[in-house]
Amino acid sequence: MAGFTHLFIPGPTNIPEQVRQAMNLPMEDMRAPDFPAFTLPLFNDIKRVFKNDTGRVFIYPSSGTGAWEAAMENLLSPGDHVLMSRFGQFSHLWVDMAERFGLVVDVVECEWGTGVPVEIYAEKLRADPQHRIKAVFATHNETATGVTSDIAGVRSALDAEKHPALLFVDGVSSIGSIDFRQEEWGIDCAVSGSQKGFMLPAGLGFLSVSTKALEASGRAKHHRCFFSFEDMIKANDGGYFPYTPATQLLRGLRVSLDLIAAEGLENIFARHHRMAEGVRKAVNAWELNLCAKAPKWHSDTVSAIVVPEGIDSAQIVRTAYSKYQTSLGVGLNKVAGKVFRIGHLGWLNEVMICGALAAAEMALIDCGVRIKPGSGVGAAVEHFRQTGVLPVAKAA
Amino acid sequence: MAGFTHLFIPGPTNIPEQVRQAMNLPMEDMRAPDFPAFTLPLFNDIKRVFKNDTGRVFIYPSSGTGAWEAAMENLLSPGDHVLMSRFGQFSHLWVDMAERFGLVVDVVECEWGTGVPVEIYAEKLRADPQHRIKAVFATHNETATGVTSDIAGVRSALDAEKHPALLFVDGVSSIGSIDFRQEEWGIDCAVSGSQKGFMLPAGLGFLSVSTKALEASGRAKHHRCFFSFEDMIKANDGGYFPYTPATQLLRGLRVSLDLIAAEGLENIFARHHRMAEGVRKAVNAWELNLCAKAPKWHSDTVSAIVVPEGIDSAQIVRTAYSKYQTSLGVGLNKVAGKVFRIGHLGWLNEVMICGALAAAEMALIDCGVRIKPGSGVGAAVEHFRQTGVLPVAKAA
Amino acid sequence: MAGFTHLFIPGPTNIPEQVRQAMNLPMEDMRAPDFPAFTLPLFNDIKRVFKNDTGRVFIYPSSGTGAWEAAMENLLSPGDHVLMSRFGQFSHLWVDMAERFGLVVDVVECEWGTGVPVEIYAEKLRADPQHRIKAVFATHNETATGVTSDIAGVRSALDAEKHPALLFVDGVSSIGSIDFRQEEWGIDCAVSGSQKGFMLPAGLGFLSVSTKALEASGRAKHHRCFFSFEDMIKANDGGYFPYTPATQLLRGLRVSLDLIAAEGLENIFARHHRMAEGVRKAVNAWELNLCAKAPKWHSDTVSAIVVPEGIDSAQIVRTAYSKYQTSLGVGLNKVAGKVFRIGHLGWLNEVMICGALAAAEMALIDCGVRIKPGSGVGAAVEHFRQTGVLPVAKAA
Amino acid sequence: MAGFTHLFIPGPTNIPEQVRQAMNLPMEDMRAPDFPAFTLPLFNDIKRVFKNDTGRVFIYPSSGTGAWEAAMENLLSPGDHVLMSRFGQFSHLWVDMAERFGLVVDVVECEWGTGVPVEIYAEKLRADPQHRIKAVFATHNETATGVTSDIAGVRSALDAEKHPALLFVDGVSSIGSIDFRQEEWGIDCAVSGSQKGFMLPAGLGFLSVSTKALEASGRAKHHRCFFSFEDMIKANDGGYFPYTPATQLLRGLRVSLDLIAAEGLENIFARHHRMAEGVRKAVNAWELNLCAKAPKWHSDTVSAIVVPEGIDSAQIVRTAYSKYQTSLGVGLNKVAGKVFRIGHLGWLNEVMICGALAAAEMALIDCGVRIKPGSGVGAAVEHFRQTGVLPVAKAA
Repeated sequence: MAGFTHLFIPGPTNIPEQVRQAMNLPMEDMRAPDFPAFTLPLFNDIKRVFKNDTGRVFIYPSSGTGAWEAAMENLLSPGDHVLMSRFGQFSHLWVDMAERFGLVVDVVECEWGTGVPVEIYAEKLRADPQHRIKAVFATHNETATGVTSDIAGVRSALDAEKHPALLFVDGVSSIGSIDFRQEEWGIDCAVSGSQKGFMLPAGLGFLSVSTKALEASGRAKHHRCFFSFEDMIKANDGGYFPYTPATQLLRGLRVSLDLIAAEGLENIFARHHRMAEGVRKAVNAWELNLCAKAPKWHSDTVSAIVVPEGIDSAQIVRTAYSKYQTSLGVGLNKVAGKVFRIGHLGWLNEVMICGALAAAEMALIDCGVRIKPGSGVGAAVEHFRQTGVLPVAKAA
Repeated sequence: MAGFTHLFIPGPTNIPEQVRQAMNLPMEDMRAPDFPAFTLPLFNDIKRVFKNDTGRVFIYPSSGTGAWEAAMENLLSPGDHVLMSRFGQFSHLWVDMAERFGLVVDVVECEWGTGVPVEIYAEKLRADPQHRIKAVFATHNETATGVTSDIAGVRSALDAEKHPALLFVDGVSSIGSIDFRQEEWGIDCAVSGSQKGFMLPAGLGFLSVSTKALEASGRAKHHRCFFSFEDMIKANDGGYFPYTPATQLLRGLRVSLDLIAAEGLENIFARHHRMAEGVRKAVNAWELNLCAKAPKWHSDTVSAIVVPEGIDSAQIVRTAYSKYQTSLGVGLNKVAGKVFRIGHLGWLNEVMICGALAAAEMALIDCGVRIKPGSGVGAAVEHFRQTGVLPVAKAA
Repeated sequence: MAGFTHLFIPGPTNIPEQVRQAMNLPMEDMRAPDFPAFTLPLFNDIKRVFKNDTGRVFIYPSSGTGAWEAAMENLLSPGDHVLMSRFGQFSHLWVDMAERFGLVVDVVECEWGTGVPVEIYAEKLRADPQHRIKAVFATHNETATGVTSDIAGVRSALDAEKHPALLFVDGVSSIGSIDFRQEEWGIDCAVSGSQKGFMLPAGLGFLSVSTKALEASGRAKHHRCFFSFEDMIKANDGGYFPYTPATQLLRGLRVSLDLIAAEGLENIFARHHRMAEGVRKAVNAWELNLCAKAPKWHSDTVSAIVVPEGIDSAQIVRTAYSKYQTSLGVGLNKVAGKVFRIGHLGWLNEVMICGALAAAEMALIDCGVRIKPGSGVGAAVEHFRQTGVLPVAKAA
Repeated sequence: MAGFTHLFIPGPTNIPEQVRQAMNLPMEDMRAPDFPAFTLPLFNDIKRVFKNDTGRVFIYPSSGTGAWEAAMENLLSPGDHVLMSRFGQFSHLWVDMAERFGLVVDVVECEWGTGVPVEIYAEKLRADPQHRIKAVFATHNETATGVTSDIAGVRSALDAEKHPALLFVDGVSSIGSIDFRQEEWGIDCAVSGSQKGFMLPAGLGFLSVSTKALEASGRAKHHRCFFSFEDMIKANDGGYFPYTPATQLLRGLRVSLDLIAAEGLENIFARHHRMAEGVRKAVNAWELNLCAKAPKWHSDTVSAIVVPEGIDSAQIVRTAYSKYQTSLGVGLNKVAGKVFRIGHLGWLNEVMICGALAAAEMALIDCGVRIKPGSGVGAAVEHFRQTGVLPVAKAA
């Protein structure tokens, strides 16, 4: 088929040309004397994306799932009590992993379309004066339902009780795209991956840990080697890795971090919000609903859109892909067939979003959803136009 | 700025990923023994795009302008009488070149927005029983105004008089995108470039000549060397070039020709027509007019859209570029400030066109043109949806 | 510094241009309907490199170390008795991992420069009629010392006793480069990585398992999720992955497998042997010794060369890198400072090897080793010349 | 065949990775408002490579041959008398072009292996008090024979007679690699191409002209359009081009100019001399002769090596290519079959040269030339080792 394919899933995201260029390279010697001159600044600069000033970020050749596992293996032990909540496929998978690793999981089941139940967490923590709960888990952005949770609120709940539990946050689809403040929110362990806000191919899992977490890691009882903090710290401190790192992705990461710094995190968050608002205005114009139950849950990186009764959302996604070369996200697990998702994170701009909305419109109508052609795009056009700013021309 | 830039000028066009991959390569030895195994099939296969069965195609490291010049230098002599017509910036530049090369040019001035005046050509040929006219020039697709001309009609006019003049056609922005039949239409000399329907970077000029033209080349009196047919033929026949060829582009051309063959020329023409119709339906929904004066002149590769009185079309183009990262074409020469252009040729699909239309809508409204947001995209969405076909899934 | 850098470490190896081109691509949708049409043949074709007909190959976004860990987590349980041998840094690390995972390891310590002690293994197996030994580990190619071991011999030792222990083989730096026959040698678990014989960037760990191993995986007691066979099988069987796969590397793998198939495994083994022989003839001409104690241990993928007393091999490696832009391998652990290594695996040819030898000569002399300039390269030149074959020209 | 191909022809040369990365990009809008911010500094910076302070450099989408033609078309008229010399294939082709363009050429025939006959030029100029000679042509580096000429000497000859003839220099294979000083040597017109010292793919012709030449261009009588100075100046002054430029190569040129500036022209010249000396020491060790008749003619960018009687040099080149994946240069015209050439210009370092020499050794011996294996490489190894400097490590 002719023309570019269009990628609007909530990750992998579109890769900036500069990153793509940087990854077009021959292999290199990861034990070279000048390798640390490349890696040490990289280890430092990636911390800024997490706003992690005092801890450190581990870069694993893995996925976000790998980074989740690294967190559990290094910081917890079988039998540890943890507090989690489930309201989508990814919070579900996290619970599942915790159970497989022998943790005693207190799962708060929430309606899909809502997020971390801060009040209930607060109650549970209040009810735990003996501090049996070793860790509290919060999914910052549930990618399956397009729901963003209040991490600062979870922190407050912990602080209110002076509860020493570690705070684990899944920021896979939020970090680098949505406001995230590891240090300020007292997050001990933030998980992300290369293929979302970092605008890289999949292949790296990031785990950003606090000093408190680093101290806790010495006490954990899980077998570990590949994900071992100790091994990684020992090698990283010299600018190296305990095994062959994915240098191609690290070279891409260098450029990605430079792009993030150049645009500025706050500007990136604002851009994501503006893009997301364009999508939400389109959904509104289509007279459809988001899976997210209230504006406070609205995610700026992904929108899960509920299709009318009798329509199979999977068919919409298939149509968009096969007829219009556009990848949208399917509904997963409980919302399979009921929602489709538009990912709007990473290297995106207005015209790309309008293209995604046009593809969605075509697929929706093709599948029998009655919307007015152009209504969604028109709403976005008007939003983007009004909120856009003509950049000041750079001098030659 | 974030996100991809959007290229909707009438060339250079968007490059297929496969072509881009193929051009990502080290340099090679253009005198290697196995170089002809690469070039000879290439020389053969490029002829199919021109539907030139019996002649040959010269590939110059130049631009379309260079190929124009190659045609004049090799086929005509100072003082030769030629028949031309002018109805846009590119037909104008061609006339200018002919005059610079000492040809005696009979220029038929036509309204911009119309094309080759077949009737007038017919009269002129009828009035030339002595065959003083050595060549008739026709711009197949005037890129400045979005006008396609009737080349078969010009052939008929020549045939009606059994006139032996050579037929020169500027197919820079038509060949590979719009129906073109060199052999059937008796075209002696067809000019194109790499950066339009061939979906390559700029840097190659193509000149496809008939056997009649090849014979005529021996009699031309212009000084020539770089563009010399004789040198090129001698070297090409062995699979080589008279000077270092642009091998990177030739490797891209190999893939581009393969993509063209895989899609099929007739399918490509149909796709371009379908894309163009989407744009025209949007223009109609915006209640604006094309520069092309009548449907018979409508170009399937570029639409020049007239802006209302009092609006500066250049401002629209600047806004689209600076605020929405989208390149549209400016108005040139007589239509400067009056039209803006959407290029819709090459490696394009529905969603890309919808993106271009959304960018145009935003820029139009920003610049004071009263159109309904989403109206143009909506018309295109409906057109593409209704005319699109779900491809049959390929087996694994 | 000018000119290309030269990579002659035993991995990462040099990447074929075709693979590099294939990895220069935008991101893609790993849940697309046509993704299995890409992955299912890939899963099948990679098995051929292992000569694994009846089992399956797991592709992890990790490193070889990750694949090691996957093997232990899925196939063994804490407290299991295993038989291992140590004769280099990588066999050492494997032992270390096994101990960390709670296995009861019977380590046979061998002289560095020798390999798997088949006779001792045979004795140990003979002395285990109760079959307490659950797995036997063999490092096929010890990358630190340039030693290749006799895996068929280990198989024979097991067979002689009809011992049911699983056979684990570390083939990270052998598979795809040195004769390897998983099915014939009854290997239950073969570990490799993308950055060696597979000629890809680092970032994928491969684990090729037998049907016997797949059955055993159900009984293993380790916590696991990221490396879980069950999850991977379930997703892979449909052409998908349990988490976002590293599609960029998978696209490269596709081309790499095609290149391997085109050259032919036996031809690749022969080429590696011929390259290695060139290096060994150079070492001989330099009047230096290999770390490998006897020809039967000679590795065709890496040569560890012993430097004379009083010379620091690390200085040679630093000189080659900093002064001659050439990466050689340092000595690790027990042989640190005593050997330097030339990696000669992957996408290599005669002239590349001669370049590596010239770099080594320059660095050796610079560091005070008395060798005759050109002696090593000359020996290789004569070897390559005599054993080389002029390929039959392909027709155009 | 496996492994990288090795390119040691005197152009195209090896492309730096940074340049290759920069050319891996989507197409762009050559009429964009910010295009001049890219081109104007480029136009300025390229002048430094020519050491042309007061004139300007034209960048044509063509080849060096095109730039030759641009010089003739814009600066001379049919019937103009010019002084040229012929001592190799490229000086021969230049004479041929001059004759085709109707110039009255006084050709000094020189022995191949020598260069511009400064003394004879001086006599001819002395014998032309009426200044009938409009231009003097000098091939700075004759690529066919590996001969560098004394351009400063030609300038002195002109100055001695206060002769106003324009000085045209073919610097295709010297500029950016061998000492070249346009302003100081009073060169009016210097020709080069992208694929030599500029380390880019073929596709751009460079013509660097003095203010005197720019003035002369108004008086030239040749028909011109594609190569017209006037059109180019008019467009370039605003940061644009008169027709679609080869933006992909321009983006590569930007990086290439940055690399040249970073290394420093004098360092680049020294590096080329050092590389060339390594080759010459190898030739000496082989007991073969250069085509260049005396050290003063030795070229630092290409060595033409005479093979013994009875040996066909073309067979050596074919063997190197087909058996060892190494491109060497064939003998052209008068020296066909008698010499083979090693190009040693552009992005090169010691180990690359040693690889080329090893390939040459293998091919020479295969073809019956009696040289000692390793002798040439050994001489180069010793030369490079002794003259090399360990770079000071950069801080992280």
